[in-house]
This record gives sequence, structure tokens and C-alpha cells, in this order.
Amino acid sequence: MAGKPLQQLKRLDTTQLAYLAGFLDGDGSINAQIVKRPDYKLKFQIRFTVSFFQKTTRHWFLIQLQKQLKYGSLRKKPDGISEYTIVGRESVKHIIHLLKPYLRIKRRHAVLILQIIKQLEKNQEPQAFVKLCEEVDKFERLNDSKKRTITSAAVRSLFLELGLLSVPVETI
Amino acid sequence: MAGKPLQQLKRLDTTQLAYLAGFLDGDGSINAQIVKRPDYKLKFQIRFTVSFFQKTTRHWFLIQLQKQLKYGSLRKKPDGISEYTIVGRESVKHIIHLLKPYLRIKRRHAVLILQIIKQLEKNQEPQAFVKLCEEVDKFERLNDSKKRTITSAAVRSLFLELGLLSVPVETI
Repeated sequence: MAGKPLQQLKRLDTTQLAYLAGFLDGDGSINAQIVKRPDYKLKFQIRFTVSFFQKTTRHWFLIQLQKQLKYGSLRKKPDGISEYTIVGRESVKHIIHLLKPYLRIKRRHAVLILQIIKQLEKNQEPQAFVKLCEEVDKFERLNDSKKRTITSAAVRSLFLELGLLSVPVETI
Repeated sequence: MAGKPLQQLKRLDTTQLAYLAGFLDGDGSINAQIVKRPDYKLKFQIRFTVSFFQKTTRHWFLIQLQKQLKYGSLRKKPDGISEYTIVGRESVKHIIHLLKPYLRIKRRHAVLILQIIKQLEKNQEPQAFVKLCEEVDKFERLNDSKKRTITSAAVRSLFLELGLLSVPVETI
């Protein structure tokens, strides 16, 4: 799937990208979270998401966005809000890379998420992973979100328990 | 005040305008309302507003918007939401005219508000005014807003009472 959207997204012009950035700043979210993956070597994964929200009465608009951006999936929630969510490292990297020049409110989110993705692609050793999880923790405050259950502290703790880390990681 | 913003707004480039349209589609509002003006000949006025909202923790962003758009005023509401509101026929006409090419969700609002303003500038006779108030009524549904207290029916009723209208206006 990766090749096709890349080609097609190149066709979005600068005003289309600027519009999408404005809409994302207004009614969207850029997020990174730590999720459990018991079958993974590191037991956790960093999940990257870009979401757009709109009342379900205007679900048509999110369908249009999906047609433009190619990635992601749509969902009608029971509370009358529709959500268009793009999940995954490659797709989020691509979308955020395109929108970053135009983002204003969520510029810091964009910079941080691209940094985390870049580091993750370079190094997936346990110690480096815990350090990236500390960066992921910052999204709790950036997104005014509720207290997170899985933080870098939980990852570090399990890594120590499993012997994936031999000494406590220095805090940044 | 009208001349200065006009000059300065011309400096906004297409990506800046597209961004603002995207943000307005996401977190803004375009509205027309009928308000009482006992000292006016027609006793009512049509009020035009463009508003942008944001959590007060990001009040800085609305200050930036005001610096770009020149018009309007800022307010911190007790519920933790800040509001940047542009009120008035000339300023709203100008802003909406600039953003309309890029609006998607609120394109219909933009078209309707510009039509009402144009008609209002041409003809302020009581009968024509009541017809415009019927157009203003459409914003209730467009904005998913709560039931309005002052509708075209109230205007028509008072006009008949005051003898400003001699016969009931046909409904459109």
C-alpha cells in the first residue's frame, strides 16, 4: 500500500495541504502512545496516529479527506462524532511530513513525532526504546489528554524485570 | 478602520488563507443572527459574525490570528475557552470573501452570508428586510444551533404591528 498513496499525495497542492493543516490544528489530533504487544520482542510498541473529527452529520467530509489522503479508516462513534484515523509509522510520517510546513498549533507535535519515528527507525535496542518512550510521554501534556496508563516508567520497569535492561536508564 | 485592514489583508498569501479556512472549518463559526435594536428604524439588525475558538491555554494562537486578520476582538470565557470574534458587515464580508475559495464544510455558510450582505446593501425596505431575515433563519440549521428566540416570524409580526408592513409577506 505504501507506494500508491505516496504517488497520489504528491498531487495535493500547497493550498490543499495548508487547508488540511488548518483543519488538523482546529479539529484534529496528532498522537503517539505506548501500547502492549506481548508477542513482540520488546513487549511494547509505539503507536502513531493522526485523527480528524467531525459530527457524524458531516461524515461526508471525512470521506472526502480519506479520498485525498488515501491512508486510514473511518468510524462513526456512538456519541454522534465521526473519526477519521490514520495509524502507523509510515503513513503518519508521510502525512505529517507534508503538513508540517503549514501547522501552527500542532507544529511541536509534528516535530516531536517525526523525531521519534526517525530514532525508532535507526535503533530499536531496549535502552534506546525506553528513551523514545520518554519522548512519547510528552504527548500526554501536548494533547491535554487524561493520565496515561502505559508510560516510559512502565516500559523501563518491565525491561528491568525481563533483563532487557541491566541498569536503570538515566532520565533525560 | 476599514481601509487599513483591507490593505494589510491583501498580504496574506493563498496558503495562509487556505490554512485559515481549514481552521475555521474545524474550530470556527460563521453566523448571522437577528438582534433587537429598539433605536433603529427597523427595530432589528442582522448581525454577522466569524468566530474562532481555542482552549485558553492556547490563547496565544488567537492573538496571532487577530494580528493576521486585523479585525475583531478576543475574549477569555469562564469555561476555559477563548474566542476570537469578528463582528460587522464590512469586516465579515471582507474576511469571508477571502476565505470562501478554500472553505469546504462552511462553504454554504459563506455563500449565504455574502448573499444576505449584498441584498442588505441594496435594499433596506421592511419587506425586503423580512425576506432577508428568512435567509438568516437558515443559519439555525446550518450551525446545529439551539432554537433561536428572534426569527423572521418575530420581525414580520412586529413590522405588521407597527404598520411597517401592510400585508403579510409571502413566504419564500
